Amino acid sequence: MDRALALATRGAGAVSPNPLVGAVLLGPDGETWGEGWHGRYGGPHAEVWAVRDAERHGLGGRLREATLVVTLEPCSHHGKTPPCADLVLDKHIPRVVVAQEDPFPEVAGRGIQRLRENGVEVTVGVRGHEARRLNEAFRTHVHTGRPLVALKTAATLDGRVATRTGDSHWVTGPDARALVHRWRAEMDAVLVGSGTARADDPALTVRDAPLKRGQTQPLRVVLDRAGALPPGLGLFTDGAAPTLAVVADGAAPAYADALAEAGGAVLRVPTHDRHLDLGALLDRLGAGEGMPEGVRPTQSLLVEAGPGLATALLAQDLVDRVLWFVAPKIVGEGTPAVADLRLRKMADALAFVEATWETVGHDVLFRGALRAAV
Amino acid sequence: MDRALALATRGAGAVSPNPLVGAVLLGPDGETWGEGWHGRYGGPHAEVWAVRDAERHGLGGRLREATLVVTLEPCSHHGKTPPCADLVLDKHIPRVVVAQEDPFPEVAGRGIQRLRENGVEVTVGVRGHEARRLNEAFRTHVHTGRPLVALKTAATLDGRVATRTGDSHWVTGPDARALVHRWRAEMDAVLVGSGTARADDPALTVRDAPLKRGQTQPLRVVLDRAGALPPGLGLFTDGAAPTLAVVADGAAPAYADALAEAGGAVLRVPTHDRHLDLGALLDRLGAGEGMPEGVRPTQSLLVEAGPGLATALLAQDLVDRVLWFVAPKIVGEGTPAVADLRLRKMADALAFVEATWETVGHDVLFRGALRAAV
Ligand SMILES: NC(=O)c1ccc[n+]([C@@H]2O[C@H](COP(=O)([O-])OP(=O)(O)OC[C@H]3O[C@@H](n4cnc5c(N)ncnc54)[C@H](OP(=O)(O)O)[C@@H]3O)[C@@H](O)[C@H]2O)c1
Ligand SMILES: NC(=O)c1ccc[n+]([C@@H]2O[C@H](COP(=O)([O-])OP(=O)(O)OC[C@H]3O[C@@H](n4cnc5c(N)ncnc54)[C@H](OP(=O)(O)O)[C@@H]3O)[C@@H](O)[C@H]2O)c1
Repeated sequence: MDRALALATRGAGAVSPNPLVGAVLLGPDGETWGEGWHGRYGGPHAEVWAVRDAERHGLGGRLREATLVVTLEPCSHHGKTPPCADLVLDKHIPRVVVAQEDPFPEVAGRGIQRLRENGVEVTVGVRGHEARRLNEAFRTHVHTGRPLVALKTAATLDGRVATRTGDSHWVTGPDARALVHRWRAEMDAVLVGSGTARADDPALTVRDAPLKRGQTQPLRVVLDRAGALPPGLGLFTDGAAPTLAVVADGAAPAYADALAEAGGAVLRVPTHDRHLDLGALLDRLGAGEGMPEGVRPTQSLLVEAGPGLATALLAQDLVDRVLWFVAPKIVGEGTPAVADLRLRKMADALAFVEATWETVGHDVLFRGALRAAV
Repeated sequence: MDRALALATRGAGAVSPNPLVGAVLLGPDGETWGEGWHGRYGGPHAEVWAVRDAERHGLGGRLREATLVVTLEPCSHHGKTPPCADLVLDKHIPRVVVAQEDPFPEVAGRGIQRLRENGVEVTVGVRGHEARRLNEAFRTHVHTGRPLVALKTAATLDGRVATRTGDSHWVTGPDARALVHRWRAEMDAVLVGSGTARADDPALTVRDAPLKRGQTQPLRVVLDRAGALPPGLGLFTDGAAPTLAVVADGAAPAYADALAEAGGAVLRVPTHDRHLDLGALLDRLGAGEGMPEGVRPTQSLLVEAGPGLATALLAQDLVDRVLWFVAPKIVGEGTPAVADLRLRKMADALAFVEATWETVGHDVLFRGALRAAV
């Protein structure tokens, strides 16, 4: 199953809105007969590739002795491809080991049931936690209709993102910055606030990391409540990736036509407390409403947050995962990474249900989950 | 040499103002014949213990075939014990491997020279960096007359040491707090500012970590420029460790007599810019001037800093080592760990010549050197 999970990750960034899936076919002595993974949206499922791989190795006639190890319950419905449960039955594979059930409530368990009813021995839950974590964005989207929100921040030891004069170049080192490009490549969309767009006009594209064949740049989402950002921003004009400018009802951004021409779109969202309603925005992104041409619903959203947006999302409990780089420097007075969260006690500080630390170049990366995986 | 360095650390906290030293005697095939370390101030040196150990194992007659591996150049002067270079010659040990020269400029190289002049083969510099790091406090004190200053801080991811209401219990977890007790046990003195003394009245004693036989509690140094701290503070009255209250010339602390009775003392230090002159304080501590009865000069100082003191020491470039815990929490608005350092550019942020990250319980510990070891 560890191997199947590793295979599954090869599809990262290319299969959305499908889940990542990996599969291994084992012979009676545990030897590997075939491997496969779901590699692109609409393409064959992992089980199909594993069977083809075994057949290519001349083992097609022996599948009656094989065990299929797969990270997700084989599907039982006709989608873009025929059901994988039927493939298992057609090939007379007698044993299937599954990490997790299908997260869609309507279909969860159906594939397993179909296999069992036809005499296949099915084991469920092996490495279930890892498998759920692997597809946490997919699962979150299925359950909430919203993307998984990962908030990325980079601060000094003393929690500053800029000096007292506003200078912020650079907080972290090149390894950390390259890792952010990898994350962009794995996520459906990247969000920034208007302050960051105005100050840095970031490209938000994947440059320091490979894109898979056929994989597109993530959607760039820019908050611009008043529709007042400069029309000349690269984000609106460079066409390097589709851009969604999020404005309040009634705003009339000067860049609307040029943006549409560059392959982008303007999304209107209601306001709440004199700001854009961020929950409503997540609903729209998750539903894929008002997207630029060809852009699918957003299952995973990387927020490259300035302090204003980070504070708003944290205060409204809209963040699932925090990706926080701490750089080994001390800057003293400056812009804090997070502003007022209205907490009074240290014991009430935002804490994490799961967390890891790892070094990335000279920096350290904290990865924390503010809520358990669904 | 790695073994000798490991043995040396066994004396940590008990040999000051002497350096930590470890020694191993090896037979001709690299087998260990004897081990020793300097275990308490005034006691026999590591080389003596290693020779005794070999003799105890019946190998005393074979030292003409041995190699002595020692972390510090054998001494050549008569101190509290006879010179170790003479011991090597008396026992006809033919080969000596040394990690570092004696840091005292007046004696550095003399022991090695004496051995070489008498036909002993001496190799110098093996694991020199590690050996210097091992005795960095001793070496700093020899070179500057001041203690090595280690600044300890514990902050949230967003760099806060307290919430906006001032609550700070607790930032880090129990493992981090226990580690601080270990550091106290290894240092000669612990320093706090008046704000921390007033707010927390910390005991500053070693409780969660073992003290070696004969080892005393570290000196507690409390800044109290105006001599206005409450006389009832445990720091002044509990007698759990000697306390040095540092006041400005002319201050008349109400607790002076009670403090003296509890084994403490008041130290007067000039002011500079309306605060205590911290450089002058470090000079006094290093010289051992005005110490309570029985307290030796301070070679190593752990600053358990509140933000006021941390900022002052960092701004005045008086910090050698930073020990910074980052706790996996986000608190938003609150007391920043460090206040204004008058830095304008991110590129001018305080950076470190050497640094490591390690996890301690749920927290991460950053250890950084603001300057290279002397
Ligand atoms: N170190 C890092 O990781 C990092 C990353 C990105 C940016 N930065 C730096 O951060 C600085 C910009 O920071 P910033 O705080 O001005 O920019 P920001 O976070 O990009 O902008 C704040 C955004 O949040 C929105 N917002 C604020 N409160 C809200 C609420 N309650 N509900 C909904 N939306 C809300 C604002 O919209 P309204 O118009 O409604 O107020 C605005 O769009 C730049 O200097 C940039 O370099 C650092
Ligand atoms: N998280 C942690 O690691 C940690 C550790 C300790 C304390 N704390 C918290 O920190 C808070 C106390 O913070 P604080 O800042 O008030 O206290 P503090 O750092 O204990 O006190 C400031 C001290 O620094 C001195 N000082 C300030 N500027 C100076 C300068 N330029 N030169 C020389 N001395 C100078 C002050 O002396 P003057 O009288 O001359 O101003 C005072 O003695 C408490 O809530 C405590 O719980 C947190």
